[in-house]
Formats: sequence, structure tokens, C-alpha cells
Amino acid sequence: MLSFLNDYSEGAHPRVLQALNETNLESTVGYGQDEYCEMAADRLREVFACPEADVHFLVGGTQTNLVAAAAFLRPWEAIVAAESGHVAVHETGAIEATGHKVYVMPNENGKLTPAAVRRAVGDHRTGVEEHMVLPRMVYVSDSTEFGTIYTRAELQALRDVCRELGLLLYLDGARIAAALTAEGNDLKPEDFAQLCDAFYVGGTKNAMLFGEALIIVNDDLKPFVRNVIKQRGAMMAKGRMLGVQFEALFRDDLWLETARHANAMAQKLAQGLKDLGAELYMASPTNQIFPIFPNRVVEALRADFRFDFIAPAEGDRSVIRFCTSWATPEENVDALLRAVKEQLSRN
Amino acid sequence: MLSFLNDYSEGAHPRVLQALNETNLESTVGYGQDEYCEMAADRLREVFACPEADVHFLVGGTQTNLVAAAAFLRPWEAIVAAESGHVAVHETGAIEATGHKVYVMPNENGKLTPAAVRRAVGDHRTGVEEHMVLPRMVYVSDSTEFGTIYTRAELQALRDVCRELGLLLYLDGARIAAALTAEGNDLKPEDFAQLCDAFYVGGTKNAMLFGEALIIVNDDLKPFVRNVIKQRGAMMAKGRMLGVQFEALFRDDLWLETARHANAMAQKLAQGLKDLGAELYMASPTNQIFPIFPNRVVEALRADFRFDFIAPAEGDRSVIRFCTSWATPEENVDALLRAVKEQLSRN
Amino acid sequence: MLSFLNDYSEGAHPRVLQALNETNLESTVGYGQDEYCEMAADRLREVFACPEADVHFLVGGTQTNLVAAAAFLRPWEAIVAAESGHVAVHETGAIEATGHKVYVMPNENGKLTPAAVRRAVGDHRTGVEEHMVLPRMVYVSDSTEFGTIYTRAELQALRDVCRELGLLLYLDGARIAAALTAEGNDLKPEDFAQLCDAFYVGGTKNAMLFGEALIIVNDDLKPFVRNVIKQRGAMMAKGRMLGVQFEALFRDDLWLETARHANAMAQKLAQGLKDLGAELYMASPTNQIFPIFPNRVVEALRADFRFDFIAPAEGDRSVIRFCTSWATPEENVDALLRAVKEQLSRN
Amino acid sequence: MLSFLNDYSEGAHPRVLQALNETNLESTVGYGQDEYCEMAADRLREVFACPEADVHFLVGGTQTNLVAAAAFLRPWEAIVAAESGHVAVHETGAIEATGHKVYVMPNENGKLTPAAVRRAVGDHRTGVEEHMVLPRMVYVSDSTEFGTIYTRAELQALRDVCRELGLLLYLDGARIAAALTAEGNDLKPEDFAQLCDAFYVGGTKNAMLFGEALIIVNDDLKPFVRNVIKQRGAMMAKGRMLGVQFEALFRDDLWLETARHANAMAQKLAQGLKDLGAELYMASPTNQIFPIFPNRVVEALRADFRFDFIAPAEGDRSVIRFCTSWATPEENVDALLRAVKEQLSRN
Repeated sequence: MLSFLNDYSEGAHPRVLQALNETNLESTVGYGQDEYCEMAADRLREVFACPEADVHFLVGGTQTNLVAAAAFLRPWEAIVAAESGHVAVHETGAIEATGHKVYVMPNENGKLTPAAVRRAVGDHRTGVEEHMVLPRMVYVSDSTEFGTIYTRAELQALRDVCRELGLLLYLDGARIAAALTAEGNDLKPEDFAQLCDAFYVGGTKNAMLFGEALIIVNDDLKPFVRNVIKQRGAMMAKGRMLGVQFEALFRDDLWLETARHANAMAQKLAQGLKDLGAELYMASPTNQIFPIFPNRVVEALRADFRFDFIAPAEGDRSVIRFCTSWATPEENVDALLRAVKEQLSRN
Repeated sequence: MLSFLNDYSEGAHPRVLQALNETNLESTVGYGQDEYCEMAADRLREVFACPEADVHFLVGGTQTNLVAAAAFLRPWEAIVAAESGHVAVHETGAIEATGHKVYVMPNENGKLTPAAVRRAVGDHRTGVEEHMVLPRMVYVSDSTEFGTIYTRAELQALRDVCRELGLLLYLDGARIAAALTAEGNDLKPEDFAQLCDAFYVGGTKNAMLFGEALIIVNDDLKPFVRNVIKQRGAMMAKGRMLGVQFEALFRDDLWLETARHANAMAQKLAQGLKDLGAELYMASPTNQIFPIFPNRVVEALRADFRFDFIAPAEGDRSVIRFCTSWATPEENVDALLRAVKEQLSRN
Repeated sequence: MLSFLNDYSEGAHPRVLQALNETNLESTVGYGQDEYCEMAADRLREVFACPEADVHFLVGGTQTNLVAAAAFLRPWEAIVAAESGHVAVHETGAIEATGHKVYVMPNENGKLTPAAVRRAVGDHRTGVEEHMVLPRMVYVSDSTEFGTIYTRAELQALRDVCRELGLLLYLDGARIAAALTAEGNDLKPEDFAQLCDAFYVGGTKNAMLFGEALIIVNDDLKPFVRNVIKQRGAMMAKGRMLGVQFEALFRDDLWLETARHANAMAQKLAQGLKDLGAELYMASPTNQIFPIFPNRVVEALRADFRFDFIAPAEGDRSVIRFCTSWATPEENVDALLRAVKEQLSRN
Repeated sequence: MLSFLNDYSEGAHPRVLQALNETNLESTVGYGQDEYCEMAADRLREVFACPEADVHFLVGGTQTNLVAAAAFLRPWEAIVAAESGHVAVHETGAIEATGHKVYVMPNENGKLTPAAVRRAVGDHRTGVEEHMVLPRMVYVSDSTEFGTIYTRAELQALRDVCRELGLLLYLDGARIAAALTAEGNDLKPEDFAQLCDAFYVGGTKNAMLFGEALIIVNDDLKPFVRNVIKQRGAMMAKGRMLGVQFEALFRDDLWLETARHANAMAQKLAQGLKDLGAELYMASPTNQIFPIFPNRVVEALRADFRFDFIAPAEGDRSVIRFCTSWATPEENVDALLRAVKEQLSRN
């Protein structure tokens, strides 16, 4: 059974695991206040060119998003997100469980547009504001749930509309490395720090055992975040695990290398599928691709491959997702392409 | 300045106020455990033909809705509502502040359809249920935010889809009397008790100083609701105020008389506007009507009349709302029609 | 059955009710933005000598307290209260339901002391602050749950310790009028505004049908409180009811007159009981007194009187509470004294 | 710098880490639904003799406790805990952030007694229940925050009082292995499953990188816990990390071996200190001991050792904590004893 199910099917990149092995018996203070976390935070501040930023290491993405909501928002403030946004769809109402509404807008290619943000705010500035939530934080992810990426101009435009309307811009970077290494990307690491009030850099989906780094650039958002992290059960006792892993992942730019491989595998797969005449639901330059196959093909592929079902499509077809990772062997891609070819040829 | 702003611009119907005056110096126990609340609850159980129902008296609609959410739902459960639903739009995220998501669907004439409910549930039964909220309670209001009403068949169909999908049906009856007395209505009071798991009967918008009666039919939802009411700051010390008012409002079916008057005034206005060639955004048989006027007319009317702005419309026009109540004098309707006629004639 | 159960057994003072009657058919805007609320707010700002304060009218005390917690605190911040404080004991966890801890300390005569506040803060400043809640708001009530009152020096000392330790001082004035008119009181209305960051003035327990006025003096606490009020279901549609009542209650200092009567009745009762040799659990100069009676007497009194059981006491005795109000007739006090005398003489 | 600061200063036991290394490149499904989690859950059900129990793997203790509160309690229900309990003191109000009150009672040797539970419930069953929270879940930990342990009779007595009073019994087993291997312990693993409705088995403080196993015995508490886990950001994407580690820790009873070592080191230290004439704040048979030293000694020890300050003590002294772990070398204990001896001799 070959897995194209997600980018967290395997453990950590060997160099990340090696760092855990090497430091295993060292004795350090807990709760992320050790020197490894400090080194990793410094390295992230350097890579993202935000020397004054606060960096917090967390275990997972939903956790990071809910900590951000709890720490950054007041009770009457809401998040604006694409209707496909992770916080809107796939977190079991984690944001609402902190008391905040997620107000959703249609996406364009998985992305939130400045026009949508403007409309979302307009929907709530109608003269009866106190009867409505106050949109306060814009949530975007790069790459998006559909594997698409923001251009620098797009992110700048979101920044501009946020500034104009008094909104915070928060970016979920669970797959930020996939975005940064994608064909067509023109964002640099430092752009995220310049354009966002806060964002997180994903490790779980990019070759760490687990770990996300929340980077807070806006000074107003910095105080008491560790208290929220503890309150939400998100503070690791052996917090150095996060620092050790991030330090290893960012040494010699391993984080980009792992992401580049994942992207390359997915793009080889995408090209191969297109060559076979398969339709893609949305063009994605990163490590998630979304072919539309006849249901018959989908079922047949399940015998040997793991992948996600996304949605039914017209004509007895389905949109599915193939997701690659730093660990996806090229031969698995080849095997999948062969299998698809065989199935499609049976038409 | 004549008000068509809402149906809570005045105090109480004189007979309701009279009851408060007459009982004012009596000494009773507090927190709604007095005999007036008991009498009123009995009367409501009789009118709605649900002798076994629990009846709780609350102060306002948002409060009632949030108590229902807190009492009836578990943390991972969500409400399904029309995107125009009061809980979705006009309660400053009150439901989310109890930790629950409101999942919105497009409305048809302000109403939620069984197909929309089915789609909402389908959106969350995708094989990754534990990553998504669980739709559990369907929220509808009758009359709706647009003044439209459900037919018996429509409410029955919602009941059926709820039963099939394991959902609770909750009806916000802030304007239930307006619905029951509207032309075209074929629902009877007892239908609400038969079709809903819980619903509330509005007093604030129907001639009481304040007050809503939450009627819980489904036995599973009955325990500990008073605890939630107290916890949410919704339990009146002098709770008998609610019983006294409801008892007065339901004596000799005053509640229907007041609603009939409100409807009649709005319908006279609607007919008058149509006679003047004005367009209505949505046909409503109750006490809220939604004309579309040139902005010039809207502005001119503001000099002498209070009303709500709803939304911009095409061609330099706006949708506004005229709302009538038990207290709206017919001469105010006449005055408004004259003013509209004059303004429209200036075209 | 004569009631000494609480100070909210009757309706409103006739002059308060009269004001509701007189204004009943007037048409005003809703949600407390009418001229009556404005007048009442102005009057309260005048009486409490805080011309810059924000004044919000709410329905009940628990509601007011939970709105204050939700509006004034960040998620990791806690309230410090006496273990007998209303927020700690009698609100079904309303504060916790907004996500905040109430940290309790022993009381002295029902009162919180600066030493207790200092100790509470010390308990949380131990070098692991982020693992503990941050005490942020001190909750006191005047009069207290035991009917006792703060002296000016005591409240000043709490103010001082709060300033020193970076805490907000919030005063629950459900019975502030009883405190202000008690023998031994040396606080003036303006002192509350000078010493507290926010406080509320109770109407429900002092001759209004319902209503509390939240007065916010500290500028930092003012923004967005109306949003919280709406979100917590605490905004009355016919909000003017609150303004009308407060305006009537504060006209010609009726609020002090009603409280003075309540106090006088309780103190007559206390003196009478002492004359009969009865023991009082705690000396209270306000409208709540706490005799300790043999259980036999308690039971016998229940035949004709309503009152609260507080706690068992040594020697087959019980602490009970007699509570008087603006509406307690002197003959009821006399009747109660006669009954107690008769019961005690049966010893 | 030698660490006696806590039992999570190092990484994982080599055999645990080895298991992570060996399985690192395997591809499995995510979110704890892999075969390693299944194996580990089976093993825990076997060890604790609860074949029908649900087992969920979480990352940390605060997280596990808050998931239990959110999943097991309704909004008006409260936890009863010792005032020293972790949920009461060291979780930044995590339980309150889920909306629930923690009602604290004095401890005896760090333990909650049946009498205290009975009193806590009695405090809330006073005839005004709906104005108070409803105590519903008793929280205990074994070993306790002071390193003490429950006897079987004590835990049975808690079980009995819980059953009598309609309470759930929840046990925080962050250090359950330390308890089970302590001198004087007469509880067996199966006792926890028989006596508790739910409990968790700690891995973080017992040689895992991280990980706690929540074991739910009471059928009523089982449904939808995974949804809560996801909602609270507590579901690991690469969830198998937890299964792999627990499986390794429980193979050949490594979990008891690691705990035995930690206990032995602490007890050697305790005996050594007693031999030196040092006073212990509380007798503890597990891996945490609490000597009382002159402040001068405390300060001097800080030069070479890490440990926790607990509280000031009489006579310019302090209570501190020495905590040992599976990884504490015996020579560190010897070094600490030598240093204490030297400091004390300087008196």
C-alpha cells in the first residue's frame, strides 16, 4: 500500500531525527526555555528577517491557530477566512470553542481576495455594529488547502486592505516551505514577516516529527502568549524537542530541500496525469494535486494506494487528492502513474 | 418623528401593563418559581397543546437562543441556520461565545429548506467527521428575518429531515404571533410543539415590556436548563414579571389580537406602496415589509420617519424595512404613504 | 405568609412604576440608546461625580458581573474574591463560563482585605507565572453577602493595594444604596467612582422591577462593552425601561429613601431580636440580618414567614437570614418579633 | 549543573527512542489511527485489565485534563480537587477556559479525602442548587503534587463516596508509575480501571519524549472524545509517535523499571538528607522529595544544582523540591548529598 494520503505519513527526516538522538540524554530546563529553542528561534528570526519577532514553538497546526485566536482576539472579534480555510472546515470548531466566529467568504483558487475581505468587513459595518461580530483577523494559508500559492502582489494587497480596515493579517504556514519552493512563487521568507502580523512555519508537514513555529511580528500581539499556550494545553514539558527539530530542519536550509522534493514528486505526478489526459480540479504548483477521475478508477486505485477523497464531481467522477512529502520515493510516483494509466486505459 | 423602525419601540400593551400594576405590591418568591409563572406556563402548555413541556421565561431573544445552544449542545455540535438567521447575523457571535459554530446555508425567501439542511449535514459527513463540527440543531425562525412564514408542509419537511439525520429542530418564535396571524399561514400553535424539539414564543416584539417563553418539548433537552439560565445571567430575580406579563398577553388571546394589528398595518402599507408603484424586495405577509426606494426618497423620508436600512440595491436605490407593531396607529401608516407618494411623485 | 426572604419579593416602588406607566406609549429607539437612558446615565454620572464615566444599564447582577468579566479580562486573567462573594458562590459558575477563574480568599466579616488580596497575588507570583492564572480584577460587594459594609478607609486600602499590584477594583453594588444609608457608613457616592475602576449600582434589590447600572470609570475598560452586552444576551430591546426606572429611582433621591426604609426595618428587627436574647451570626447595619435560632424555632417560624436558611450552627441551631426591602411594612416586622418571642419563650 | 528540577529534563529512554528510530520511515495513516496506536492501546487495556476501555493518546497532562473536562462535563458541572491539585494551580486556568469551575478543598498529605469530597458536595446542595455549580467530577492524582500516594483503601473510599453522591472519579496519572512502584503502594494497575471512571497514564514524566494515555472505563464518557481532542488542538497528525513510544515503554514492563529507578534515586536522597539531619516537608515515597533548608543553603546549592523553590518556611528557611527521573545518575545524587553536607556543616 503506497501512500499519497498526506504529508505526515512518515516520521522525521533522518537529520531531524539524528538531532533528537544526539541530544537525547542532555538535561535542560523545560517548557521551551532551553538553549535549543533559543537557537531555533534565533535561526527563524534570521531566516524570516524579523530580529524583533517573538517565536513560540507548538505541536500542531490546529493548536497554533486556536492559540492565536485566543491570544490575539477579544471576545467580540472574528476571523475572516476563505470558506475552504483550515480554521473554517477542518478543526472541529476549534476557533469557535475559544469563543470566536469564523466568517467565511468564497475563495478564488483556494485563496482569499482583498475584495472578499472588504466585502466581509462591509457585511459587518452596517450601522448596527454592536449587534454583529467585529471582523478583526484575516486568516490565509500559503500554500492553501488546494495547494495553490499567493504571489507577493496578492499578499501585499491583503496587507494593504488589512491596514486600511484595521485588521490583523495571520498566515497559516503549515505548508509555507512548499509555497516558498513552488514554481511561480515570488515570495521570500522575509516577505511573510513584513506583510503579516503573525504567521506560523510548519514542521509537521515538512519532515519534522511534529512542530510549528508561531512568529509574532506585531508588538501588540506579543504579551502573554506563553500563558495562552499553557492554558490551551499546548506547552510541551520537554519543549526542547521542538527547538532541536527546528534547529536541525533549518540547518543548511534542509526545510527547503525537503519541500522541494515533495513539490517535485507532486509535479511529476501532475504532469504524468495530464499526459494521460486526466483533468485536474485546480492547478497547484505544490505538493498537493487534485485529479478528477471516474469513480471506477478511484475505486480501483484504492487497492494499492492511499489518498483522500475530496468531493463528488460531475459524470460519476470524483475529485481526489494526491499528496506527496519529503519522504515520497520517486518510484512510488511512477507506480501510481502506471496504475492510473492502466485504469484509464480500461475505459 | 413616526417610527417604523421596529416592533419594540413602545412599552407594553395596556392590559399587560395593567397586570403589572395590579400585582406590583404582592410578595412572591423569586426566580420565576411563583404562581404567576406557573399559571403562564400552564396557559402556554394549553395553547400550544404540549401538556408535558417545560416552559422557561427569559428576557430577550438572543439570550434565549444562547441558553438553548449552551443547554442543548455538546462542545463539538453545531447549529445549522440560514445565512440570514438571527443567530448567524445579529447576535454579536453569542452562539460562538458559548463555543458552538453556526453553519450557514443560503435561504429561500428567508427560509431554510430541507435540501439546505441535508447539504449542510452532507458537508460534514465526509469520512473525517472528527475533524469537523457535528451539525446537531437546526435553527429556523417564524416569521423569518424577512417577514416570510413557513407553511405547515415546509415545517413538517424540516421535521422529517431532522428526524432522518438525527438533528434537533429549534424554532425562534420572536415573531411567532405575527406568523400565526398572517394571511397564508396554515400552522396552528400545536404544530410548533409537535414539530419542534424546542421553540420560543416571543413577547418583546409582541406587546410585552420584555419576555420570551422557551418551550422544551423533547424530554432529553429538559434537565438542568434552569442552571444554564442562571449561569448565563438570564434568570430574573423578580421573575414573576415574566409570568404576569405572559399571563396577561395570553388571556383572551390578546397575543393574536396584537399581532393581527401589526400585520394589518404592515399589509396596508405594503398594498399602498404597491399601488404607488413601489417595488418590494420580498413579499411578506407579516409586520415587516421591505420596499426598494431610490436613495433620494430614502433620505427624504428620514426627516419624518424612523426605519431600518437593509442593503444597497441596484440603480442608486436601497432596500429598507418598515416594521409595524401592536402600537402602530393607522394614521401613521397613512402619513407614511402620503410621504412616499409625495417623494415618488417628485421623480 | 409574610416574606423576609429577600429584597426582590415585590415589584417596583410606585413612583418607579408610575414612570413606566407614563412613558409606556411613547415611541423611542431601542437598545438603551434612547433619551431616558441618556438622562438616567447623566443623573448617575452626577450623583457619583464621574462626568466622564460610561454607564450601561443591565437587567440583573449575575449578568452584570459576567459582562464585566468578559469585557475587562483577557483569557489568562482571574478574579480575586472573598470565598463568600456572589461571583464565587451564587452564579452557577457564570464567571468560569466566560473562561475566567475566580480565586477565593477567606473573608473578614464578609469583606475582602488588602492582606488577602496581597496573599492571593503572592500565590500566583511564584516564578512560574505562565503556568498560573494572573490575578487581575478584585471583586468586592458593598454591602456584602453578609450585610456588612466597607468603610472609606477599607475601600481606599483595597484601592491602594490594587494600584500597587496592578489590579482592577470592581465593586458589585447590588445593595450599594443599603450600604450608603447604613449606620456607620462613611462612604459617599463619589468615593465609589474615585476608588473603583468600575462598579454597578443595583436597582433590582432597591425598588426597581429590575435593572443594574454598570459605571465604568477607567478609560481602558470602556471600549466595546456594548458589544459584550449584546453578545451575552444582556441588551434589552426596549432598553428604555431601564433608563425610565433609574431616572425615577434617582429623582429626589428616592433610591436612598427606599434603602433607608429597608435598613430601618432590618435594624428594628435586629434590635428586637437582641432584646429577646437572640444571637446574631454577624453584626450587619443593612437590610440583611443573620440570627441563630434553635432548629425548633426555625421550623415553627416557617409556618408564617418566608426566610433563607444559611447554614447549620452548633447545638441544634441554624443560621438564617431575614431580609427586608423598601416594601417591608413595619407591622410585618412587629409580627415577626412577636412570633419569635413566642417561640423562644416555649423553650 | 546537575538537574533535580523535574522529571522531564531529558529526552526519552533509549529503548523508547530506538522504537521511534526503527519505525521512522514507515508510512502509516495519521491521527492515531495506525496499528502502533492500536497495539499500544491493546497493551494498556491488558496491563490495566480493562478490555472494554477506550484509550486515547495525548501529548501532555494539562491537555489531557482539559480534554477530559470538555468531554465529560456539561456547562454547569464542576470539578472537585485538592487545593494543591494540578488542575487547580498549575494549568493557567485551563479547566476554567473550557467553562468549568474547579472547586478546591484542603488536602491531607497532598491527597483529597472522602470527607472533603462530601463537604464540597454539601457546600453545593443547599436548596439553591441552580444558583451554584454542580460538583460532578472528582480530580485526584497519584502520585500527588507532593509525591505522596493513595492506598487502595483510600482510593476505594473515594470511589464509594463518588458513587454515593453521583460523581465521576478521574485520576491524573502523570506519575502513576512512580506511585505503583513506591514503597507502601498497594494499588495494582487493574485497581485504577476498577475504581476510576477515567484516568490517564503518564509518559512524559516517565521516560517518553511526550505522551499521556487517557483510559476511559465508563461507557457514558466514551462517545465523541476524539472530536474534543481535535477541537482542543490535541490530535497529533503523526499520531503514531504516541503509539510507538507507549508500545516501547510498556514492553517488558519498562515503564515500571524507569519509575523504580526514579523512586530509588529520590529515596536514597531522602535518606541521605535525613541522615544529615535535614527536615522534609512531607514524607514522600516517590520521586519528588521536599526538604526544608536554610535560605543560605538553598542559595549556595543553586550554584551547581537545578531544583524548584516551593514555599518560604519559618526561620529564614525554604521548602524546595528535588525531583528525580529515570535518567538521574546515582552519582548526581551522591554529588548533591555531598554538597548539602558541606553547606549544612558550615552552619
